[in-house]
Amino acid sequence: MKIYIHTKFEASEVLVIKEKLAGKYELVIGEEISLENREDQFLSSTICFGNVPLAWAQKTSKLQWLQLHSAGLDPYQQLENYTFQITNLKGFFGQSVAETAVAGILAMYRGVAHLSKLQTESKWIGTPLRSSLHLLSNAKVLVLGAGAIGQKVKDLLVGFNCETTVLDSKTVVNLDEYLPTTDILVATLPETPETIGLLNKTRLQLLKSSALFVNVGRGSAVDEEALIEMLKNDQIYGAVLDVTAKEPIPVEHPLWQMPNVLLTQHTSGGWAEENLDKIKFFTENLERFEKGETLVNIANLARGY
Amino acid sequence: MKIYIHTKFEASEVLVIKEKLAGKYELVIGEEISLENREDQFLSSTICFGNVPLAWAQKTSKLQWLQLHSAGLDPYQQLENYTFQITNLKGFFGQSVAETAVAGILAMYRGVAHLSKLQTESKWIGTPLRSSLHLLSNAKVLVLGAGAIGQKVKDLLVGFNCETTVLDSKTVVNLDEYLPTTDILVATLPETPETIGLLNKTRLQLLKSSALFVNVGRGSAVDEEALIEMLKNDQIYGAVLDVTAKEPIPVEHPLWQMPNVLLTQHTSGGWAEENLDKIKFFTENLERFEKGETLVNIANLARGY
Repeated sequence: MKIYIHTKFEASEVLVIKEKLAGKYELVIGEEISLENREDQFLSSTICFGNVPLAWAQKTSKLQWLQLHSAGLDPYQQLENYTFQITNLKGFFGQSVAETAVAGILAMYRGVAHLSKLQTESKWIGTPLRSSLHLLSNAKVLVLGAGAIGQKVKDLLVGFNCETTVLDSKTVVNLDEYLPTTDILVATLPETPETIGLLNKTRLQLLKSSALFVNVGRGSAVDEEALIEMLKNDQIYGAVLDVTAKEPIPVEHPLWQMPNVLLTQHTSGGWAEENLDKIKFFTENLERFEKGETLVNIANLARGY
Repeated sequence: MKIYIHTKFEASEVLVIKEKLAGKYELVIGEEISLENREDQFLSSTICFGNVPLAWAQKTSKLQWLQLHSAGLDPYQQLENYTFQITNLKGFFGQSVAETAVAGILAMYRGVAHLSKLQTESKWIGTPLRSSLHLLSNAKVLVLGAGAIGQKVKDLLVGFNCETTVLDSKTVVNLDEYLPTTDILVATLPETPETIGLLNKTRLQLLKSSALFVNVGRGSAVDEEALIEMLKNDQIYGAVLDVTAKEPIPVEHPLWQMPNVLLTQHTSGGWAEENLDKIKFFTENLERFEKGETLVNIANLARGY
């Protein structure tokens, strides 16, 4: 049985894949063959690990299983009449993304984002900074999205005695009533027809001027222009943005130089062992595939996650 | 009864003091009178709020109670033959300092310190940063000092499932056996004869090269030169330093431009309502004083905290 590895891995990680699979399978590592040969290798494979181009996925008749290396399903929602199984990495990034969300909140509240910038200038301010700092303890936190990330954010905050409310995809429509009393709004939403533009200008303006906005879901959930305007006018305390409308953020974009913004450059899903853990997830799913068991994380393309 | 307020407060905060005390006491706000009159006003006062010069404190015969605005007792350990009570703010800064400690850990592990610096250059790196990040979850954390700060650090980490060990002033002598397996070393130690130089070169070198060092206690606890040398040679992953040997840190000091160091400029004890909360602490202690009750936080000068 042929397995095509499309995901780009480090040489040391490829070695791990080979050690685990090379004896048992015909293994093709996309990165090791020329670009023009990859599509053919994919089309003759039974199993694929990695997010191949949509056109390839549309064309294959041999593939039985596609393991994505992402939680998001974009652009595979557009697939038509496909016969293979698709699994994704739903939940895989929960801990990591939630940790960056809390890191971002604390970086804003405890001045770390500002202090890091001062450090580039070797500039000591010290004591006068203290009155600009805030305590996370006892804050009212509203988490949008009750998936792995949202639940983890709530878990991580336990020691801080925050009053944390998590709204799932059904209850998120009631968010308006929560916004006026929220100290920290954390969006962990996937991109679905319901979440695009959910945080429009009217909703953002329901927030207190002392509110902190954190987005570790998808940039499309928020009206970015309205948010920037509010940040400029101090109608909102600050924003931690892992995701934005445009990525990479263009060098001339106003977000870069806003003092009340922390940009984490869509890194929240990462950690040193991320790829090795992805390989582990794939090979464990592969054992299930071999045994005819139900695969973990079968994607629901219609739902979008 | 005369109360002398030595601590420097904002006008709005002085107003709060006056509203609470002006009717009942002869109230002298140091900041409102000329410098040369302050010592006399202090010497004729029964109660003082604020860290007056040691020489004044040595001279007074009228003072019955000195409420310090700090947790630290320096330089009052040098007082001789004094007859007044001294209270400090032990525990008052626990939550705040612990939050900065965790903010610093997460800033290093989740790349926020680095990302903040990149933001000053409007520089996107994105995905390639991910493999340099770490998860705090499941880390082995060793906290030196079991006071309010140390306990709070442990509390805040509960949601992260860290394996946290807190060594108090008695057990801290056994730290050597813990250092080789520690991922994150958090020093929250007060300055005492036992803690000065506790983290000497030999001890620091027991740490793993992947270890993160956090100091939110006193700079004197660590051999700073040895630490800098280890940071330069990647013998240690990084350091979050709220306290250093010299404060302010001189502009030419090597710590400023070290990429694996986060300097929080001795701000960890601060939050927006810090002074109002100090005033509240003092006025509540004042009520106890009036009723002849035992004051909260009577300082132990011999012990040093």
